[in-house]
Amino acid sequence: MLRTHTCGELNLANLGETVTLCGWVQKSRDLGGTTFIDVRDRYGLTQLVLNEDTSSVIREKGRTLGREFVVKVTGTVLERTNKNLKMPTGEIEIAVNDIEIINASKIPPFMIEDETDGGEELRAKYRYLDLRRNPIRNNLMLRHKMAQEVRKYLDALNFIEVETPVLIKSTPEGARDFVVPSRMNPGEFYALPQSPQTFKQLLMVSGFDRYFQIVKCFRDEDLRADRQPEFTQIDCELAFIEQEDILNIFEGLTRHLFRTVKGIELNEFPRMQYADAMRLYGSDKPDRRFGMEFVELNGIMQGKGFSVFDNAELIVGINAKGCAEYTRKQLDELTEWLKRPQIGATGLIYCRYQADGTLKSSVDKFYGEDDLTNLAAAFNAEPGDLILILAGHSQKVRKQMNELRLEMGTRLGLRDKNTFAPLWVLDFPLLEWDEESGRYHAMHHPFTSPKPEDIAMLDTEPGEVRANAYDLVINGTEIGGGSIRIHDRGLQSLMFKHLGFSAEEAQKQFGFLMDAFEYGAPPHGGIAFGFDRLCSIFAGLDSIRDVIAFPKNNSGRDVMIDTPSTISEAQMNELKINTTV
Amino acid sequence: MLRTHTCGELNLANLGETVTLCGWVQKSRDLGGTTFIDVRDRYGLTQLVLNEDTSSVIREKGRTLGREFVVKVTGTVLERTNKNLKMPTGEIEIAVNDIEIINASKIPPFMIEDETDGGEELRAKYRYLDLRRNPIRNNLMLRHKMAQEVRKYLDALNFIEVETPVLIKSTPEGARDFVVPSRMNPGEFYALPQSPQTFKQLLMVSGFDRYFQIVKCFRDEDLRADRQPEFTQIDCELAFIEQEDILNIFEGLTRHLFRTVKGIELNEFPRMQYADAMRLYGSDKPDRRFGMEFVELNGIMQGKGFSVFDNAELIVGINAKGCAEYTRKQLDELTEWLKRPQIGATGLIYCRYQADGTLKSSVDKFYGEDDLTNLAAAFNAEPGDLILILAGHSQKVRKQMNELRLEMGTRLGLRDKNTFAPLWVLDFPLLEWDEESGRYHAMHHPFTSPKPEDIAMLDTEPGEVRANAYDLVINGTEIGGGSIRIHDRGLQSLMFKHLGFSAEEAQKQFGFLMDAFEYGAPPHGGIAFGFDRLCSIFAGLDSIRDVIAFPKNNSGRDVMIDTPSTISEAQMNELKINTTV
Repeated sequence: MLRTHTCGELNLANLGETVTLCGWVQKSRDLGGTTFIDVRDRYGLTQLVLNEDTSSVIREKGRTLGREFVVKVTGTVLERTNKNLKMPTGEIEIAVNDIEIINASKIPPFMIEDETDGGEELRAKYRYLDLRRNPIRNNLMLRHKMAQEVRKYLDALNFIEVETPVLIKSTPEGARDFVVPSRMNPGEFYALPQSPQTFKQLLMVSGFDRYFQIVKCFRDEDLRADRQPEFTQIDCELAFIEQEDILNIFEGLTRHLFRTVKGIELNEFPRMQYADAMRLYGSDKPDRRFGMEFVELNGIMQGKGFSVFDNAELIVGINAKGCAEYTRKQLDELTEWLKRPQIGATGLIYCRYQADGTLKSSVDKFYGEDDLTNLAAAFNAEPGDLILILAGHSQKVRKQMNELRLEMGTRLGLRDKNTFAPLWVLDFPLLEWDEESGRYHAMHHPFTSPKPEDIAMLDTEPGEVRANAYDLVINGTEIGGGSIRIHDRGLQSLMFKHLGFSAEEAQKQFGFLMDAFEYGAPPHGGIAFGFDRLCSIFAGLDSIRDVIAFPKNNSGRDVMIDTPSTISEAQMNELKINTTV
Repeated sequence: MLRTHTCGELNLANLGETVTLCGWVQKSRDLGGTTFIDVRDRYGLTQLVLNEDTSSVIREKGRTLGREFVVKVTGTVLERTNKNLKMPTGEIEIAVNDIEIINASKIPPFMIEDETDGGEELRAKYRYLDLRRNPIRNNLMLRHKMAQEVRKYLDALNFIEVETPVLIKSTPEGARDFVVPSRMNPGEFYALPQSPQTFKQLLMVSGFDRYFQIVKCFRDEDLRADRQPEFTQIDCELAFIEQEDILNIFEGLTRHLFRTVKGIELNEFPRMQYADAMRLYGSDKPDRRFGMEFVELNGIMQGKGFSVFDNAELIVGINAKGCAEYTRKQLDELTEWLKRPQIGATGLIYCRYQADGTLKSSVDKFYGEDDLTNLAAAFNAEPGDLILILAGHSQKVRKQMNELRLEMGTRLGLRDKNTFAPLWVLDFPLLEWDEESGRYHAMHHPFTSPKPEDIAMLDTEPGEVRANAYDLVINGTEIGGGSIRIHDRGLQSLMFKHLGFSAEEAQKQFGFLMDAFEYGAPPHGGIAFGFDRLCSIFAGLDSIRDVIAFPKNNSGRDVMIDTPSTISEAQMNELKINTTV
């Protein structure tokens, strides 16, 4: 080792010891006679002191050190006169005997500090410097700890980690695949997995009983703000279990992570039907750090001559506690916010429960005092509250109200990053109608089993069939989802039929799985957690980017290594492909 | 849970309990009045008994069960009369009260037994059935255990597991890349990593200090018997260390794995110079389970008129202990074996040290008794030994003799799979001459640092420059290799120059790394273990295929899912590529 200690471990117990440290110059303060230099490594920061007791050669050398120089320093551990009790090494300093400049540094393009002056693009280009900053490094250390704890927990429950292949087969179902031309099989392609779904099911057919994997997956989608073309899943599958077992085991995993990584003891996770989540929150992933549930108002508000409400499929409201003081300007601004194309509401109706006990709405001419009293009662509203109402097509208005609820939650400070509100959402629909292709798609994936009692509706009301599918939601973010799978060839064929596959297509793409079901497939089910997302929630971040060491930008580019990039003619010739740009 | 217990846990302590088991019918013996059925799961095998105490309906059902049917069985734990003490459940059996057939099975295409009748191709097609066999499942459980122990060991030493990207940049150095067309950046490609080399070095520049990752890597090479297009590495890198530290830490890892996974306590690993390994074993990965070192014989055998020897650059021999009794036929057969094109020797000279103490060689007319006595003395040969000699061009003859030595080791039973002989091979050459391209290539990779004292030879004798590079060899197989890296822009540029890169090419491909070296790069180095290979050695297998859940065949195909395969015109249009087949 080039050092005897790290920069994070020396304290009063080491007084008088001769030590050698290696690290980066964090900063240097030259006070004339004395120079203080902070040296940093992953483990901490240690203060060096060069003064009249230091040889003049070394003092001179100390003065030449710029920020981010890499140095090797030997010296004696002394007690500081000016102690800093906030840092573990804050009671000591090193009286320097020798400094070796291992590597100089140009002036970094941005400050290597917790709060940096570097813009996003600059930091992406110099990601290796951005990774030196404590907050980013801490995120990756948190991620490491979480992965270790996931493995510890699952290993103790007899789960086996099995690596499934990365070079697999392209299937048209689901999102777009990344493909890889095969040189040895010209004209043919591998695909990168969107998930190890079929492989983990085959492992159940093989009798592995309990499988997991922390695994990279890939989706070639247009990247929204917080998507990455490659992402990491905690992927799990179990045989001979029922839904209840999966909920218990993975609620256990989540609680284990909160306990061991964050020191937080969570209560039992509440559970909610998908239908209730949509009705009460307009979302299949409600943020339950706060209430503000939807109240449906058709009964109270229709038939009073207000045509907007009378013609609406759904009238729904929320109660923004204590917001009666909102000015007209604030309400106009909220209305404009709702009318933006991203949300698309046509207008906002409000009713103030004023401090004096009177009710005042923006549609007073249609509603009398009794009507408004009924309205307030529906929300258990109190003086000072503000009721916000949207109306229109049910599905759209629920989505809009979900956005409004979250916005009001944020404005009211009800979405604290250090509060964690987990929720299981159960009994998702099996199928969802896709306008574009004019057919039903699998809401989770084609391997999800319908509820046995709903199978009869597949022909008559496919949209009503419920699946044995569940999501784990924390603070309004889906962090995991899964289902009990089909393990029977007949039912799987039926599902493919309902998804618009011909028998030949189904056999060509998923024949291996359906064949496997004929050789003794056990009942099985599983779940997958979005590991990047889970880490970002633990780290209190809005984006997953800073829990990924080398993320890509919104165009799928790594600007640091400058990829994707062109390849040579020779490479393309060998692969027997051409670009058609 | 569908079961109360697994098939591997019931014993006399459970007598009288009513239990429910789930599993696969391993076999069924119908002895007229009594039917015995073995039910199998991952955890073991339990015997069911159906006899006159069983209801006739259930007995009839029991008779319908075929091999590999999936059943759920409820019954009472009884003591067996005919105990089988070789299996944990061998003292009990289950008197069956109820059987539910969860899933039937067609007759499997091969026997699901430890020794199967299925050929390689058939088993590959039905890999999910092959994975049911104990030996294969045990390999994957071993692999899981090894991965867990690797993480435990490295985590305890402050290593952080960081996931590096899979979609990276194609570089012409090294093996052929797999590439991935980018839809969002038409005409451009990602590449899949052959290793995370540059990223782990950047993590050192970032101050991560100690990194590891168990990670998939990819090489588009023509597959020899035991290569896979995707393979797994234990990838590690450390900063502020010297070669000695790396050897100690990873010798420690290897010993930890042998101790915890196999219960074997290994002695300190011997070390050997690359040059000595080549001289004594003709290989940079000598199998040290046995001696049979090379002895160079130019001094003894030249100048006696035997032109084959006189014209040879190198004459080298080994002593096959106790093989003096080899018949002429056996020696002819060995000679033919050596002459095959894979080895390419021109002939084999031998000298028998006969039981009566006399020496008899195949070139007796050129060598007198004294000569042969000197020859025998050079090997410390004894009566009963057989000296085998090859001559020719040094490099070729060493390779040939390496093959012969290994073959003789095998024939003499000196290569026991349960004996483990680790060896560090040190000080590899930095560069090796490539006939095809007519230039030097990096023997490890372009980031390996030359020994400082040898740098001066880069211009004069590039082939003689030694690198700070090391391999860990076990039983003749390289299981890990690494080096101290260059951390200085100037030296890295010099290396690229010697590898035939123009300054522009070097900057275009590796500019990000060389730039990073200018912002305070610490001294660093690392190692990567071939995890598949390591697992296969622990499992006592010759091939890595059976420590991989879903391997590909020699054409890079997964015959189970039938990939690679064609993709649709629409997909190619979206990706703006064409095939030119």
